[in-house]
Amino acid sequence: MGATPVKRTSRDIRTANRYEVLRQIIASSPTSRQELAAATGLSLATVATLVGELLDLRMITEVGFEDSAGGRPRGLVAVNASGGALIGVDIAETYVYAELYDLGLNVLARAEERMRPGQSTPEEVVAHVATTTRSVVAQAGVESARVLGVGVSMPGQVDRATGVSEYAPNWDWQDVPLLDLLAEHIPYPLYLDNPLRACAVAELWFGAARGYGDAVVLILGTGVGAGLILGGAVHRGVSSSAGEWGHSTLVLDGRLCHCGNHGCVETYVGAPGIMQNIRELSPRSPLLHPGDQSATIDALAAGLAAGDPDAVKVVRDLARYLGAAIADLVNVLNPEVVVLGSWVAIRLGTPLLREVRAAVARHALKRPMAATRIVLSPILTDSVCMGTATLALEGALQSVGQTTGKRATRARSRTAPPT
Amino acid sequence: MGATPVKRTSRDIRTANRYEVLRQIIASSPTSRQELAAATGLSLATVATLVGELLDLRMITEVGFEDSAGGRPRGLVAVNASGGALIGVDIAETYVYAELYDLGLNVLARAEERMRPGQSTPEEVVAHVATTTRSVVAQAGVESARVLGVGVSMPGQVDRATGVSEYAPNWDWQDVPLLDLLAEHIPYPLYLDNPLRACAVAELWFGAARGYGDAVVLILGTGVGAGLILGGAVHRGVSSSAGEWGHSTLVLDGRLCHCGNHGCVETYVGAPGIMQNIRELSPRSPLLHPGDQSATIDALAAGLAAGDPDAVKVVRDLARYLGAAIADLVNVLNPEVVVLGSWVAIRLGTPLLREVRAAVARHALKRPMAATRIVLSPILTDSVCMGTATLALEGALQSVGQTTGKRATRARSRTAPPT
Ligand SMILES: [Zn+2]
Ligand SMILES: [Zn+2]
Repeated sequence: MGATPVKRTSRDIRTANRYEVLRQIIASSPTSRQELAAATGLSLATVATLVGELLDLRMITEVGFEDSAGGRPRGLVAVNASGGALIGVDIAETYVYAELYDLGLNVLARAEERMRPGQSTPEEVVAHVATTTRSVVAQAGVESARVLGVGVSMPGQVDRATGVSEYAPNWDWQDVPLLDLLAEHIPYPLYLDNPLRACAVAELWFGAARGYGDAVVLILGTGVGAGLILGGAVHRGVSSSAGEWGHSTLVLDGRLCHCGNHGCVETYVGAPGIMQNIRELSPRSPLLHPGDQSATIDALAAGLAAGDPDAVKVVRDLARYLGAAIADLVNVLNPEVVVLGSWVAIRLGTPLLREVRAAVARHALKRPMAATRIVLSPILTDSVCMGTATLALEGALQSVGQTTGKRATRARSRTAPPT
Repeated sequence: MGATPVKRTSRDIRTANRYEVLRQIIASSPTSRQELAAATGLSLATVATLVGELLDLRMITEVGFEDSAGGRPRGLVAVNASGGALIGVDIAETYVYAELYDLGLNVLARAEERMRPGQSTPEEVVAHVATTTRSVVAQAGVESARVLGVGVSMPGQVDRATGVSEYAPNWDWQDVPLLDLLAEHIPYPLYLDNPLRACAVAELWFGAARGYGDAVVLILGTGVGAGLILGGAVHRGVSSSAGEWGHSTLVLDGRLCHCGNHGCVETYVGAPGIMQNIRELSPRSPLLHPGDQSATIDALAAGLAAGDPDAVKVVRDLARYLGAAIADLVNVLNPEVVVLGSWVAIRLGTPLLREVRAAVARHALKRPMAATRIVLSPILTDSVCMGTATLALEGALQSVGQTTGKRATRARSRTAPPT
């Protein structure tokens, strides 16, 4: 048997509880230990210990007192926004984009590098990540010692534990040791994951999945996929490749997908699939901007707003595909919430959401459907960057209580970490 | 926000570790604390404490010593098979079947009651469960005080926490308080769940999912579904209805399913779906026994064994549907193992398995496919009964350390529990 025992430790629990308390403080600063205990379901003693650790780390501060009915005044704590900086980097097919955040997850600086087709060797991509990272630190004027970590999102299959980009379909990368390459240029703790997990963790901490145990975060862009939150944490799967809902079969023997399968969800609801849907409906449709996904989706959004019947029909068609494919996830996983995110979902917005809700209800079983909310992502900034920055925050919280100077095992850098 | 905080406690961890140690003892009796620590990844001190609890409960016994190289002789423990009895009950469309097990999960007695169509009111079903339960206790000659619990599997959507059968499609039951009705007749702690979860927990403890963190247990019978094991525990979903993979869309706008959706997996790979596949291939096929699923599947198995080209074609066709539908689960969940269980899978056996493996590989992404084993269930007895008995065992283990006489919150009986 090649099975490894599943070992659960009190350390995992402690880390998860630490996440939850900080999440709650960020969401509702200023707040008291009593309110935190009520909101998280943890005991007051546990909350007091975790708050103490976060105060020691200067991630939060004491900000005064509030009266409590008939008791001692309660101490209030709030997130110490300037107590540290986090950087999130989104590596995409045509650009590298970075954002620097304070601990309240406010964006302090942004930087972008464009990439032309063919300019995407590992060395070129690493150089862009290093440049954007340096740029956001310089723009924000934060000291190096205050940067708690850099989270990097790489498309495709990524082994977060080893920092290897195992497979990037667009660039045909295979087993590139990306984190090691990045560590030669970037003097901060580094965390690597893929966009599905980044968006899931952003929704879990700051978005529509906050407070839920089981949630599905859909990425609807050029590619499509699902970040899964199960049991209150991101589900990665045995080889870190869970969430490839875009390559589920929706139409047996349907459209050929770049993954080699036929009839994948992505071939009908990814931006190129939507362009194909329009083409099949009406080859000369003015909605269609050949070779330009972004302009096509914008034209569709504008058409919807203007009540154009062709645009309405295209979105209804899209919702029909999405409805069946989302119903599969509702039936199989029985989540509390399904979040529609990424640029196609955001640009088509509420009209798409309305059609999708109706379509999912037509396909899903009644009981799990009744238990599931379907919502648009409320995150207004780049949710991949926010998610990777959050992964860096999680890494910093995970190393709390470890020997000073010892890095979290998943964080790597060639230089000494900030102390 | 209707979200409830996800509270994880050290108590949950302790219960999970207790499961793991007992699972390992059942699998490898006699064994030493040192071997248990090595197999589970737990510390020797933790193992020693958990072994002490299991000894106090008389679920295991000391059975002597083995020499250890250069050290003190090591104490050996083994499961105390006669230390308690567990009953598993499988409520199906046409029968109620019960098995009584010792703590080594050996079957000591069996009982069955047949039901005719129309004889399936809650009262009639409860009477059958009470009769079979009494029968297996009498046959095995165990004292009532030694029966640790009765697990009952009810098809459809079941709320395990409240003991309510929320929806049973075949009988059109809605919100039947089944556990309360059963408790009026059965003087043992009772646990209710559905067949998907029962089979998943049986595979997790005693079958092909043992030792794995992420596993999918497929039920391939009249209906089809998936029991999900994620993070080492059964995933139930927010309203206890996870696993309804049988109602995922495989063929958009395909065959009408009794759930109201079109093109559900179940309509192509459930036993009635297989009969339909045969009919579409060749309406007068000698494989087809109209109105008799069991005879049809047997004819198919016999045809396969004899190399009948029609049978080979039908199974290849079935594998094609299963391949795409299983690939969806491999892509989305990235499990370590997929287990094919229930009567259709068992009767078609290795020839089906071989075709399914090849078909999944054609549809799934390469990386998650390479990380997933696809196997037949090794459980030879009724895995629903074994699974519900295991749920009762889990319930008994969960109440360890609670005030004596206090029942596990999920167990209910109107009489005092055995002490
Ligand atoms: Zn695909
Ligand atoms: Zn169905």
